[in-house]
Amino acid sequence: MALVNENYLKLPGSYLFSDIAREIQSFKKINPEVRLINLGIGDVTKPLPEVCVKAMHKAVDEMSNAATFRGYGPGQGYDFLINAIIRNNYQSRGVSLDKSEIFISDGSKSDTGNFCDILSTDNSVGLTDPIYPVYVDSNVIDGRAGDIGRDGRWSNITYMPCTAENNFLPRIPGHRVDIIYLCYPNNPTGTVLTREQLKEWVDYALANDTLILYDSAYEAFIRDKNIPHTIYEIKNAKKCAVEFRSFSKIAGFTGVRCAYTVVPHEVSGALSDDSRTSLNKLWSRRQSTKFNGTSYITQRGAEAIFTPEGKKQVRKIIDYYLENARIMRDGMQDAGLTVYGGVNAPYIWLKTPEGKTSWKFFEYLLHRAHVIGTPGSGFGPSGEGYLRLTAFGERYDCIEAMERIRRNFNR
Amino acid sequence: MALVNENYLKLPGSYLFSDIAREIQSFKKINPEVRLINLGIGDVTKPLPEVCVKAMHKAVDEMSNAATFRGYGPGQGYDFLINAIIRNNYQSRGVSLDKSEIFISDGSKSDTGNFCDILSTDNSVGLTDPIYPVYVDSNVIDGRAGDIGRDGRWSNITYMPCTAENNFLPRIPGHRVDIIYLCYPNNPTGTVLTREQLKEWVDYALANDTLILYDSAYEAFIRDKNIPHTIYEIKNAKKCAVEFRSFSKIAGFTGVRCAYTVVPHEVSGALSDDSRTSLNKLWSRRQSTKFNGTSYITQRGAEAIFTPEGKKQVRKIIDYYLENARIMRDGMQDAGLTVYGGVNAPYIWLKTPEGKTSWKFFEYLLHRAHVIGTPGSGFGPSGEGYLRLTAFGERYDCIEAMERIRRNFNR
Repeated sequence: MALVNENYLKLPGSYLFSDIAREIQSFKKINPEVRLINLGIGDVTKPLPEVCVKAMHKAVDEMSNAATFRGYGPGQGYDFLINAIIRNNYQSRGVSLDKSEIFISDGSKSDTGNFCDILSTDNSVGLTDPIYPVYVDSNVIDGRAGDIGRDGRWSNITYMPCTAENNFLPRIPGHRVDIIYLCYPNNPTGTVLTREQLKEWVDYALANDTLILYDSAYEAFIRDKNIPHTIYEIKNAKKCAVEFRSFSKIAGFTGVRCAYTVVPHEVSGALSDDSRTSLNKLWSRRQSTKFNGTSYITQRGAEAIFTPEGKKQVRKIIDYYLENARIMRDGMQDAGLTVYGGVNAPYIWLKTPEGKTSWKFFEYLLHRAHVIGTPGSGFGPSGEGYLRLTAFGERYDCIEAMERIRRNFNR
Repeated sequence: MALVNENYLKLPGSYLFSDIAREIQSFKKINPEVRLINLGIGDVTKPLPEVCVKAMHKAVDEMSNAATFRGYGPGQGYDFLINAIIRNNYQSRGVSLDKSEIFISDGSKSDTGNFCDILSTDNSVGLTDPIYPVYVDSNVIDGRAGDIGRDGRWSNITYMPCTAENNFLPRIPGHRVDIIYLCYPNNPTGTVLTREQLKEWVDYALANDTLILYDSAYEAFIRDKNIPHTIYEIKNAKKCAVEFRSFSKIAGFTGVRCAYTVVPHEVSGALSDDSRTSLNKLWSRRQSTKFNGTSYITQRGAEAIFTPEGKKQVRKIIDYYLENARIMRDGMQDAGLTVYGGVNAPYIWLKTPEGKTSWKFFEYLLHRAHVIGTPGSGFGPSGEGYLRLTAFGERYDCIEAMERIRRNFNR
């Protein structure tokens, strides 16, 4: 009789997006003439940069010819892509990495989820709250989270609330935590950490032998010089941090699937006999056992964004989304609303007015302004009282949405 | 202090292919003028079918235009591909499946490895021996395998030897086993199970409440009408079996990455309180938490092989490899060698002559015939005394290799 991993049954249903869809459907039924504007969308809308399209066509052609056909690639990724990443995203910021420290994959969701596989279930976990739900769920699956309480918090997880009250700066735990997830620029709040603020986390990790799992999927949106793009800009971070990166939001790869994880040789984990082992070796073994590399065509597409022309095209796309964010921030502030994030990040975190709950304000915005957001409470208990808006939409939608909001909220 | 999953440290190094590479290098150093023929290669050599190339070009173009751009796809895969799979690979064989029972992924290695995630570590596991090493390693990682003995067998795994002595028919265990892996057509032996033989396994599974994890990655090589392509051709198999399929060896997708897993709604797992839960729901939750779908471009490429023209092109490629297999079988038999498999399968399992070990015969073949195989002992203890050859090479290489072997072995 095959027994299942019962931790799966502890996971609460993830109803957030289906609940949103249901609300929208019932609104549309009653108001079929209204054009709704969706600012809740977490997906990009701009097509792939031309350089990627060209590179992928070329790669497809190579695959059609026996002389240039590529079968199984190197499991860790092709050197051409790994070298381009190291040169452009790390060396350029004073960070030296070896080829064997980069692992190309099909997505950061896979990587952040699967990384738990090489870690013992006996670790304590710390999370900023609100947070990308995958971090929580993958730890629940492994039996690392404990039990969920009435307040929506898991018993074995240390929550670090990020709210307007603490300026969205997670407080460093007063006790030792084995593994800490940090995501900056942050999803969902759109806030960032300065170099000095991130250094405090690295110092904590080094002092407490904590492993930091650092998600910098949105680093391309950083324009401010004092915001670090990679955690390895902080001295000695290689000893305590693993970094997750993605091409999804930089180059429109959400449907193409490419990401990478940096596991420095210096970062290690502990064994029960107090000896240490290289996490790079374990992750390499995990990936070579349960993964068989990323599409060659995809990797050629990803490589193209590091060409001079590719950089220009990516910059233009990111600029477009950042300008959307600016328009949305300004528009909502004009309307008397309070917003956070949206600078150096594609996410805007809107405080619900008059103490409304996230869901109440979601409904209010839908019915009054015909604008769709994402209730912040879906990202964790401390997301209550906020709404997430994203800058990934079309410019005219952002402008029109702000007009609608101004009309409804201006006093 | 982050503790690691110590099961990883139990895994023996996987030196098979690096050892082979080393032997070849040292041979080449001494004999630089010799052209070696590699029949050990597990990768395809034929380029992608034209229909796939065309479909992927079209998909890349779609991604370059905002109106047709696709971001995140449905996590379980696009309906166009799922429907094509159901219609062509299942309905055509009298098997009805619902869309929600097919999960598109980036590869069978990922799927067979990750499937363990939804199963308790407390299950007993049964494996045919020799076997694809991923099945063993992923269970070791989960702590399901116990400890490795001097004979290379893990203490908590039931081995079902497949050797010439039992005609490569694994004996059904006399005791209850919770999870059994079967791969037919088999890698590495190239042997198959008839419908009647597979039915015995399904009957065993139904009687013992065993979960069968059925890998049919090589089903496209089946030409014999009495060999089932899918385990669901056997009555009631939907109650006890999950099936893994891949586009790698059918359409040259080893570097493109596409596969799928069938998890019928009827197959369930047990909870410690003796209640049951749907494995489909758990796998769906696993994939939606730790995976974000397969490239749209890849899925369009995969869809194309189900068109009438695509079927013709795939058939031609498979025919080519099968003819290679026939040439190799005949050639080696002419040379007085004993071979198995290679009919309805791309793998040939060569018995080493005069009781030589796999490695000794590997070296002998390298030095005498300048032909490279893969030592069977690398696939498990019962692979000792065999060599795996594959039909994925070039025709002229297969012919030339057989001439060399005949010259050396003919009495």
